[in-house]
Amino acid sequence: MNVIEIADAADARLADYLRLRDVNLRRSLEAEHGLFMAEGEKVVRRALHAGYRPRSVLLTERRRDLLSDLAGDLAAVPVYVVPEAVAERLVGFDLHRGVLGSFHRTPLPDLDTVLAGARRVVVLEDIVDHTNVGAIFRSAAGLGIDAVVLAPRCADPLYRRAVRVSMGAVFTLPYTRLTDWYGGLSTLRDLGFRLLALTPAPGSVPLADALAGAGPGDRHALLLGTEGEGLSARWLDQADARVRVPMADRDVDSLNVTAAAAIACYELVRSG
Amino acid sequence: MNVIEIADAADARLADYLRLRDVNLRRSLEAEHGLFMAEGEKVVRRALHAGYRPRSVLLTERRRDLLSDLAGDLAAVPVYVVPEAVAERLVGFDLHRGVLGSFHRTPLPDLDTVLAGARRVVVLEDIVDHTNVGAIFRSAAGLGIDAVVLAPRCADPLYRRAVRVSMGAVFTLPYTRLTDWYGGLSTLRDLGFRLLALTPAPGSVPLADALAGAGPGDRHALLLGTEGEGLSARWLDQADARVRVPMADRDVDSLNVTAAAAIACYELVRSG
Ligand SMILES: C[S@@+](CC[C@H](N)C(=O)[O-])C[C@H]1O[C@@H](n2cnc3c(N)ncnc32)[C@H](O)[C@@H]1O
Ligand SMILES: C[S@@+](CC[C@H](N)C(=O)[O-])C[C@H]1O[C@@H](n2cnc3c(N)ncnc32)[C@H](O)[C@@H]1O
Repeated sequence: MNVIEIADAADARLADYLRLRDVNLRRSLEAEHGLFMAEGEKVVRRALHAGYRPRSVLLTERRRDLLSDLAGDLAAVPVYVVPEAVAERLVGFDLHRGVLGSFHRTPLPDLDTVLAGARRVVVLEDIVDHTNVGAIFRSAAGLGIDAVVLAPRCADPLYRRAVRVSMGAVFTLPYTRLTDWYGGLSTLRDLGFRLLALTPAPGSVPLADALAGAGPGDRHALLLGTEGEGLSARWLDQADARVRVPMADRDVDSLNVTAAAAIACYELVRSG
Repeated sequence: MNVIEIADAADARLADYLRLRDVNLRRSLEAEHGLFMAEGEKVVRRALHAGYRPRSVLLTERRRDLLSDLAGDLAAVPVYVVPEAVAERLVGFDLHRGVLGSFHRTPLPDLDTVLAGARRVVVLEDIVDHTNVGAIFRSAAGLGIDAVVLAPRCADPLYRRAVRVSMGAVFTLPYTRLTDWYGGLSTLRDLGFRLLALTPAPGSVPLADALAGAGPGDRHALLLGTEGEGLSARWLDQADARVRVPMADRDVDSLNVTAAAAIACYELVRSG
C-alpha cells in the first residue's frame, strides 16, 4: 500500500477530508470534485465491495492496520496515516472510528435503467434530512425493495451522514433522481407502476387494504413526503391511491417518515 | 403571566436552561433538581396538556407572545423573556424554536400499574441513543401500543432530544423502568405476557407467523435490543419465542432498531 504519513492538518493532500461537519463547504467541495465520503471500517469496505473507485483513504495512527487486507483494492491510491489530533483538527471532530475513505461518484443511472426489472420502488419527495434518507435506504434494502427514486430536492444519499446511517445500503440499492418534479411521476405510471401516496391525512385507505389482491406481476411505487408538510398536492393528485398506516386514536398525528417507510416497505413486500 | 425580562445569560434564575448540549452536565443537573426540558411550542404545550407541572418557561424576544393563550396554566411560574443572543449563550446553540419549558419530573409508576390493563407492550433493553428511544415512543404511541418498559440502562425518555423526537409521546404513553435487569422479565411473564424477542439472527420465526392465531385476550411484549449487539443472551433465553422481521437476501444484516420497532408494533396491533 502507498502509505503516506502526514503530520500537518493543513497539508493540501488532505483537502478531501476538510471540515466534514460544514454542510455548505462539503456540498460544494464534493460536487466540484465529484467525490463522496465513507466513514468507518464497515462502510469503507462496503463502498469498495460495491465497486466504487477510491480517491484516497485516511487512517488515524491507532487504526493504521485496519485495512491492511485490502492492499490489492487500495494499491492505486494514497493511504494517509495521521495522528489522532491531526485528524480531529482536519475533519472537525474526534474521528473515533479512525477511518475515512474518499470515493469517486459515478453518474446516476437514468430512470429507465433503474426501473427496468424493478417491481417495488420507493419514491421520496423532498426529504431534506440526511439521516432520514439514509435510514430509509437501510430499511428499503433490508426489506427487499428494488429501487429508490428521488425528487429533485430530496437530500443526497451519498452525503456522509446518509451513507453512514444507511450502513452502506446507498451503495447497493439502485437509485436515481428525477430531473422534473412536476411531471416526474408520469414515467413511473407509463411503466405500469401503481402509485401509492403515503399520507396520514383523512380520506386515505389502510395500506394493507390497498394491497389486498395485488398479484405477483404487479408493480408498486410507495410515495413518501417531507418531514413537515408531507406530500405535495401535486403528487397526491398524481397518485393512484392515497394510503395510510392506521394510527391509534392518540395525540400522535403522524409517524416519522422513516417509520412510515419501514412499515410500508414491509407491508408491500409481504403482500407478495 | 409573570413575565421576567433577563439580559444576562449568567443570571442564576436561568440555571435550568444551562448548556443543553452538555450531556453530562444535563444528566446531573436534571437528576438533582428533578426536572426535564421541553423544546419547541408543540412539545411545551403537550407537556402542559399531559399534566406535567412547569417550573418556568423561557421565550426569546421574538417569540414572547407564543404562549400568551396559556396565561392560566403558566400563572404560577416565571416566564423568562431573553434576547436571542442571550438564549444562544445560555443554552449553547441557536434557539430557533424560541421556546423552552422546564418541568418537574414525577415519580415513575411501578411496573404493576403500568401493565394493569395493558395488552401490548414494548420492552427496550439497553437502547442508549436518545433519538432512538424518542422515535420508538412516537411509533409505539402512534400505532397503539399500551405501555413501554425500560431496562435499567436504557436511555432516559425525558431527556430533551428524546422528548423532541417523540413529539411528546413520552408524556402520554405510560412507561416505567425495571430496577432489576436479570430477573426483570419475570413479572411480565407472571402477568401472562408472551415475550417475543426481536432478533434478526438465524433461528427465529417470522413475526407474522409467531402472531398468527393470537386471540383478542392475549398479552404480548416485544423485546428490542441495543443498536450494536442486540438483545442479551439472558433476555433471549427468557423470551417465549425469538421472532424476526424477514430480511431480503442483501448486504444489510439488520434493521435499525427504530425501524424494527415500528414494523413490530404495526404487526402486533394489526394481528388483533
Ligand atoms: C411526518 S409525516 C408528514 C405529516 C404531514 N402533516 C402529512 O399530513 O402528511 C412525513 C411523511 O411520512 C409518511 N407518513 C407518516 N405517517 C403516516 C401514516 N400514518 N400513514 C401513511 N404515511 C405516513 C407520509 O408519507 C408523510 O408525508
Ligand atoms: C441493529 S439491531 C442489532 C443487530 C444485532 N447484530 C443482532 O443480531 O441483534 C438492533 C435491534 O433491532 C431489532 N432488529 C433489527 N433488525 C431486526 C430484524 N430483521 N428482525 C427482528 N428484530 C430486528 C432487534 O431487537 C435488535 O436487537
